[in-house]
Amino acid sequence: MRLLSFELNGRRGLALKSASEWLDLGESDPSLPDDVAALLALEDWRRRVDVAAAKAPRMDVSAIEFLPPVRRGEKILCVGLNYLAHVGESPYSVPDYPIFFPRFASGLIGHRAPMIRPPESEALDYEVELAVIIGKAGRRIAASAALDHVAGYTIMNEGSVRDYQFKSPQWTMGKNFDGTAGCGPWFVSADELPPGGRGLTIETRVNDVVEQSASTSDMLFDVATLISLASAVLTLRPGDMIATGTPAGVRFGKKPPVYLKPGDVCSLSIEGIGTLENTVRDEF
Amino acid sequence: MRLLSFELNGRRGLALKSASEWLDLGESDPSLPDDVAALLALEDWRRRVDVAAAKAPRMDVSAIEFLPPVRRGEKILCVGLNYLAHVGESPYSVPDYPIFFPRFASGLIGHRAPMIRPPESEALDYEVELAVIIGKAGRRIAASAALDHVAGYTIMNEGSVRDYQFKSPQWTMGKNFDGTAGCGPWFVSADELPPGGRGLTIETRVNDVVEQSASTSDMLFDVATLISLASAVLTLRPGDMIATGTPAGVRFGKKPPVYLKPGDVCSLSIEGIGTLENTVRDEF
Repeated sequence: MRLLSFELNGRRGLALKSASEWLDLGESDPSLPDDVAALLALEDWRRRVDVAAAKAPRMDVSAIEFLPPVRRGEKILCVGLNYLAHVGESPYSVPDYPIFFPRFASGLIGHRAPMIRPPESEALDYEVELAVIIGKAGRRIAASAALDHVAGYTIMNEGSVRDYQFKSPQWTMGKNFDGTAGCGPWFVSADELPPGGRGLTIETRVNDVVEQSASTSDMLFDVATLISLASAVLTLRPGDMIATGTPAGVRFGKKPPVYLKPGDVCSLSIEGIGTLENTVRDEF
Repeated sequence: MRLLSFELNGRRGLALKSASEWLDLGESDPSLPDDVAALLALEDWRRRVDVAAAKAPRMDVSAIEFLPPVRRGEKILCVGLNYLAHVGESPYSVPDYPIFFPRFASGLIGHRAPMIRPPESEALDYEVELAVIIGKAGRRIAASAALDHVAGYTIMNEGSVRDYQFKSPQWTMGKNFDGTAGCGPWFVSADELPPGGRGLTIETRVNDVVEQSASTSDMLFDVATLISLASAVLTLRPGDMIATGTPAGVRFGKKPPVYLKPGDVCSLSIEGIGTLENTVRDEF
């Protein structure tokens, strides 16, 4: 199942992929949530989607504005340094426990929205990541049961403002600038991908040049382990999202680093999901 | 104005202090939000409170369960090492930029709720903090205008699980265990306190022994500066909360540290606000 969140003529809703078409669920059931996180929080969401889909009109995707598919969950956890080659381009050592850090949903942007370079910095960087969306709540989830709690996946461009990231020992501010985190283009349910999203090619191209290219199997802590360790600390709930870290090839790791500039087109692809595209724009 | 959030016989609502009484706003207007963050997001919240208060019955506070007064905001930002003497008991140097880090609302507990020591750790610690609640949205707010964006204040016990805090370079997991963050007892509007909440005695007592005692004027970055710097990065919205850091005296800073144990009563007071009390309990 593929779901996208859109805005069309001031109306927001979800659309469902059916063969080669997208069906406008919001048109057929205006009471349905307009993002996947809020949808997954409904006990009977599968039935609601089925009922809405049965009478949903086709939607012209070329006319819509894409919204981040998952933006109203309770929590977004990101993971730092979860690919060995990326650790090598950082000043840190290989972690023996995942480096979780939060990201607020307020910084998310949808597919094709401009990625904002703020006037405060010229150190805007991309980070392609497989984002896992939780479908079933749990605390202290065993790794062996963790994938039962996954509803699906999407792509995150965990956009980072590097000078702000390192202004203090906590990365928070460099990871939470408004308009810097691409999310999308859509939600793909877990059954459409290999278990745990393993073995997928994950890539960033900037202006068609490959900058990051790896396999999701290269993660130091895999999806099941991340869910298990995170849920030891806090209850995971439907709509929560875990961005599982980025492979090597970010601009911060280059010597000297050459950061993103207005007009740069960031195309982030994960096999089986699709391509998330955002073009950098100066805020003013 | 003082507002508390409560649960009474399965019903949740807000109550307003009027002279020596609390008025049950939720009883007189069931459509009113049951927490202050959601209330502040309403354009006409002052009028709604006035109308509800005019016909609200008295509430017996001894019968209620206190809920965190601010729990549905978009963001909670905490500030690390914002009191000089507390920097001295940490392994860090004096920050030249605030150490912001996020906390999820999912870990909040109300006044008198048990503070949970998880089986994963014996290193549970208290941190008394003045928490600022945003009332007016803004981005790139000048420090000189920042206090216009403050709706009010409450107390936070920024409960920390120290071994988890230092398992990785990011403090996230030690700061987000379920059931560890006291918040309350109530919301106090800004007009009832000095500008920026300055000059208030801030204290923690554990089992009636004073453990932390300072003045909010001792902050390295004051409330206006924190709002200005945070809003340079992200849009602050009504209901967002900033916990402004803790003074010296946490257990982590003692040699050797003696952490909280089941039965310990944490009483956190800020002059002009009140006392937030939580008793430590083992999770199982």
